[in-house]
Amino acid sequence: MNGAQLRTATGILFTDQYQLTMAQLYFRMGIHERPAQFDHFFRQPPNYGLHSAGYCIAAGLEWLLDWMETAAFGPAELEVLRSQRNRVGKPVFGEDFLAYLRDHGHFGGITLWAVPEGRVVHAQAPMTIVRGPLLMAQILETALLNHLNYQTLVATKASRIREASGASTVLEFGLRRGQGLGANAGTRAALIGGADFTSNVGLAHTIGQTAKGTHAHAMVQSFLALGMSELDAFRAYAEVYPDDCLLLVDTIDTLHSGVPNAIRVFEELRAKGHKPVGVRLDSGDLAYLAIQTALMLDRAGFPDTVIVLSNDLDELVIWQIQSQIAQEARRYNADADAIIRRLVYGVGTRLVTSHGEGALGGVYKLVALHDGKEWQPAIKIAESAAKLTNPGLKRVWRLYDERGKATADLIALEDEDPTSEECIRLRHPSDHARQRTVRRSELTGIEPLLEPAMVEGRRVAEPLSLEQMRARRHADVERLDLGVRRIMNPHIYHVSLSQRLWDLKQELLTRLQQV
Amino acid sequence: MNGAQLRTATGILFTDQYQLTMAQLYFRMGIHERPAQFDHFFRQPPNYGLHSAGYCIAAGLEWLLDWMETAAFGPAELEVLRSQRNRVGKPVFGEDFLAYLRDHGHFGGITLWAVPEGRVVHAQAPMTIVRGPLLMAQILETALLNHLNYQTLVATKASRIREASGASTVLEFGLRRGQGLGANAGTRAALIGGADFTSNVGLAHTIGQTAKGTHAHAMVQSFLALGMSELDAFRAYAEVYPDDCLLLVDTIDTLHSGVPNAIRVFEELRAKGHKPVGVRLDSGDLAYLAIQTALMLDRAGFPDTVIVLSNDLDELVIWQIQSQIAQEARRYNADADAIIRRLVYGVGTRLVTSHGEGALGGVYKLVALHDGKEWQPAIKIAESAAKLTNPGLKRVWRLYDERGKATADLIALEDEDPTSEECIRLRHPSDHARQRTVRRSELTGIEPLLEPAMVEGRRVAEPLSLEQMRARRHADVERLDLGVRRIMNPHIYHVSLSQRLWDLKQELLTRLQQV
Repeated sequence: MNGAQLRTATGILFTDQYQLTMAQLYFRMGIHERPAQFDHFFRQPPNYGLHSAGYCIAAGLEWLLDWMETAAFGPAELEVLRSQRNRVGKPVFGEDFLAYLRDHGHFGGITLWAVPEGRVVHAQAPMTIVRGPLLMAQILETALLNHLNYQTLVATKASRIREASGASTVLEFGLRRGQGLGANAGTRAALIGGADFTSNVGLAHTIGQTAKGTHAHAMVQSFLALGMSELDAFRAYAEVYPDDCLLLVDTIDTLHSGVPNAIRVFEELRAKGHKPVGVRLDSGDLAYLAIQTALMLDRAGFPDTVIVLSNDLDELVIWQIQSQIAQEARRYNADADAIIRRLVYGVGTRLVTSHGEGALGGVYKLVALHDGKEWQPAIKIAESAAKLTNPGLKRVWRLYDERGKATADLIALEDEDPTSEECIRLRHPSDHARQRTVRRSELTGIEPLLEPAMVEGRRVAEPLSLEQMRARRHADVERLDLGVRRIMNPHIYHVSLSQRLWDLKQELLTRLQQV
Repeated sequence: MNGAQLRTATGILFTDQYQLTMAQLYFRMGIHERPAQFDHFFRQPPNYGLHSAGYCIAAGLEWLLDWMETAAFGPAELEVLRSQRNRVGKPVFGEDFLAYLRDHGHFGGITLWAVPEGRVVHAQAPMTIVRGPLLMAQILETALLNHLNYQTLVATKASRIREASGASTVLEFGLRRGQGLGANAGTRAALIGGADFTSNVGLAHTIGQTAKGTHAHAMVQSFLALGMSELDAFRAYAEVYPDDCLLLVDTIDTLHSGVPNAIRVFEELRAKGHKPVGVRLDSGDLAYLAIQTALMLDRAGFPDTVIVLSNDLDELVIWQIQSQIAQEARRYNADADAIIRRLVYGVGTRLVTSHGEGALGGVYKLVALHDGKEWQPAIKIAESAAKLTNPGLKRVWRLYDERGKATADLIALEDEDPTSEECIRLRHPSDHARQRTVRRSELTGIEPLLEPAMVEGRRVAEPLSLEQMRARRHADVERLDLGVRRIMNPHIYHVSLSQRLWDLKQELLTRLQQV
């Protein structure tokens, strides 16, 4: 795409056609400026095939707000719409509608509450709430879902990988396997969710980091093609980067060529007063090779060097590698814990694509519309009770038990204040038989999750730094029950409705089904 | 990201750090301008869990070339590199290296051959070949893989969905589930690979199409919230779009509310001389509902209306729906074929994320390096024979048998011309025991697959139109054996080495393993 095409495809027309055809219909009906409220939530956490996530990490908001601040119907966008023809050759959009978009086709009327990036979020509970004129709030849907779904998906995967990796450093390597330039969103989300560093040069810089990286097989191959050796390649690398010497050792033969050559170069570095960093293993039985490599490095007097592992890693593979090392190390009289502590994980494809579940099923549902006098709750009936939406203007609260652990998220009506209630009743969102009551005195805290992010088109919060988002993630994950954090078959975290919201939902259902 | 950050993150720094550290090393060694050749290929077609693709569709080239023409090390990029510090606080990159990048840090020296977009490509055979100065050819790796891997992945999935859909129209709806702005690449690839239309407004326009879309549940919900009915909503839609009336019928109850209301509106449209388009089903048992909906529409005298299906469709779900309709229709005295013919498939999440296999494992391997006098072949040894790279300067040929079907792709050395050989020996890429010989007289055609796309940084081919790419796809898929086109358990298409390439590979292996 050339520059003009790129602007067309990434501006306000980064949306689905039906948003625009609906918008024109609202305009024709005269309801286009009615205040409307939409909830954004996901129905289930990512299910990676045989195992499901116990929680998600919110991400993507900042980039969505950036987009909203600049996206608008300018002359080029209006021209695109003007050129559209329907089945009988007539213009799809009328000039009166286009004139309206010219004057009002921006997000200046939108107010948006969101769970801040980095925080733990759960299924069913709105993580974003949008209020504004029906027409523009509707048009926002596609871009909002695109930005928040994907980054939340990857931040969640990164958090799982972070949990599996213990105290080890996690490196994000997925740029080459992402979706075009959108891979940058994956890098950002990975850094929010649990990766420590990334190889992505440009994105790292924009987020205040320096990218990580040393060399690929191609460097060693180049030396070989020119009649030199792997050792020559390693020496050259050590000469150029004496204080950052991390060598990829599997181009020829990991244990018989790569590691011995690396050790020779490390010895030469040490003699010159430099501290070598370590080696990277990118193929083969990584657990076995990590043990052998650690033993060889130890024997050579380099117990402080790291061993970076890469090659289709994810949380389960990391877990398996650690288990195998724990079992197999004793056979070699090796200290499994010490080996595991020196590991660094390079995670690429399976992080950026969220292996096993490549999309978060986040949806954006109309929950209330103002009829000119008052707000009218809206609901979408569905075949299964679990797919019913929760109507009305709402807020989400997180309840902490006597241990300080999050015990439930409560979806309540906007004018409810559970902090002032003595007994809080928690209703299951769809199963009428399941409910429980918690006493305020049993709780150590109740906290609203949604914070205002944009009011009438203006951002109202300072952008969070990466460190702030990570600190929130860490604090929230620490306050989860260990069962919810579990990588396989986690406990289902409770997301509940307040009694008043439950009643409103039943009332609407009854009313609609009588029609 | 703001505008400057976006430029940083999408320009030449849209790369992995190790490309730059290797580049500086090549510069220090004085080999940075040595001509190098890299092959881009994938080792296996996408494996979607229980089933694998039989072929892939090349896509992404045009956008890669666009990127290459504008990406370069300008002042902003050099400042990013200048600011990087290593572990001991020193600059990572020297000023001499940065000065070199300032003057030579662009793709003006790169020559690139590629299989044109839309064509069928197979595992192992290079689909892109890059020749140019080692330093810049190395830096190109990340962006090249990013652009070509993802679009090829999605074009392949789209082609499978196209095959499953028969003559039905396929609509691409995945924008909200893609990776940020990279979702546009998914839309483009889907259109190349088999989708007829997309809902993505901006991208559709840039590629010469008009996006498709009608309305969502939100429109019906809005009417309900304002005290009106589904019928009112449908009537309003029909009034604004009398010639494009396609109604979403599952907001309340598909068979008891949605379809009857749609039929009433269709009757009113017909009375006014308009031709209704059809309905969309987005939930429930789509096969059963399609049969019932078709019967109701038929009874009302609308046999020509379409039935659009959506909701997590992919090639297997489409196949299942057709099978179920074929079995179940007779129970209702319905004509299964007629029902299947009127179906239109809306495919979103599972297309844009390539459900089951979210990444194509395309790699970019050094295969030759010029030592100042002549080209030296390069190889990467690996633990398994199947992962060995094929060394040297090569070309790829496609051989057609007496039926005109593609029978094998032949990877040969650049100076070989199989069209002039009486007998062509085809060697299995890794299994020395497997080979066959075809006589030239048995073949109806031999065709080179790679075409020059860029010579010394200049594009040499006119960009293909969407229609041209689709025509190539169609022609190539038609020339595949039906077994290779099969959605489940396809035949493995033969990709072979020429005898001379096989010999070179063995010679290099022997030489390297003696070192």
